[in-house]
Amino acid sequence: MARWKPNASERLAIAALDLFAERGYENTKVIDIAQRAGLTKSTFFRHFQDKREVLFGGDTLAGLLTEGIAAAPVTASPFEAVTHALDTVGSQVFTAARRDFTARRQAVIAANPELREREALKGLGLTASMTEALRHRGVPDLAARVAAELGALALKIAHERWSDPAGTEEFSAVVRRALGAVRTAGVSSLH
Amino acid sequence: MARWKPNASERLAIAALDLFAERGYENTKVIDIAQRAGLTKSTFFRHFQDKREVLFGGDTLAGLLTEGIAAAPVTASPFEAVTHALDTVGSQVFTAARRDFTARRQAVIAANPELREREALKGLGLTASMTEALRHRGVPDLAARVAAELGALALKIAHERWSDPAGTEEFSAVVRRALGAVRTAGVSSLH
Repeated sequence: MARWKPNASERLAIAALDLFAERGYENTKVIDIAQRAGLTKSTFFRHFQDKREVLFGGDTLAGLLTEGIAAAPVTASPFEAVTHALDTVGSQVFTAARRDFTARRQAVIAANPELREREALKGLGLTASMTEALRHRGVPDLAARVAAELGALALKIAHERWSDPAGTEEFSAVVRRALGAVRTAGVSSLH
Repeated sequence: MARWKPNASERLAIAALDLFAERGYENTKVIDIAQRAGLTKSTFFRHFQDKREVLFGGDTLAGLLTEGIAAAPVTASPFEAVTHALDTVGSQVFTAARRDFTARRQAVIAANPELREREALKGLGLTASMTEALRHRGVPDLAARVAAELGALALKIAHERWSDPAGTEEFSAVVRRALGAVRTAGVSSLH
């Protein structure tokens, strides 16, 4: 398995996850997370606006999706540009070394209403970022919104499936299958 | 214009909207809203869990969408069942007499991050309700999710357009056009 050398924000996320699992989300303070990660509270707040945010990696994912859509070939359709962006996040964020972390993270989020709420809002932010990036390519507003919604749905489904700790497939394969399934379901729903 | 006789929860919503506009959301307390509506604080909390909720009408919309999907003809496709549900909310919630209220409500929500967040989460709840109602009709999970996402997008677009105070068209006409546009954009995005 590839080595994963966490940076400061990742060390904070891992420390937070350990503490949330040990004592519960409510009983963990920002200072506890920083200390466990061997960092200071002010370092924590340079990376994350609050305790809820620590499991959501700031705006990394939104940024990568935006870049992935911008970098898709000029001839790509909106849905192909979204596919390109999801491949990008697969290779850069959802690597094999992170599957176990992601599975534990999902369990903590599922158990906490505040974290579920933040996750839902983060998902809407990703859709908005993809819509904006598609518009920048000259895609008409409504087509951009639809392609971004369907891409976000495929990302969500792929993330659920890939973060199953029993899984072995790479994210890119899982997300390609999810995109294909969403496309098929979309075409049949719309007829 | 049709007369609209507000019940307790609607009187509370109107009072809240007036107060938020007059003194700002932050400077308005639940007791102020109840008093302005000629009701008690405990009546407020029988209808809404907190101050943020007062502009979102509890679960009325989710319930109507669920009923509308259930009541669609058995032969209806997922997208047609969603269309039937959006017609139902158009005739029961987004009536001509409520356009002005809705326009003022949208302005207050747009100005307040807490209310925008609640609105976003409410939107996700509507998508989840429609997905569940479609599954109850025997629609496969993914087709249900896609049809619900596209229906929610059409509802959002129609709501934005219809709540323009300069508009004169009925909600049902606006939402039908939005559904048609989403369908066309969906078909072209997916090819």
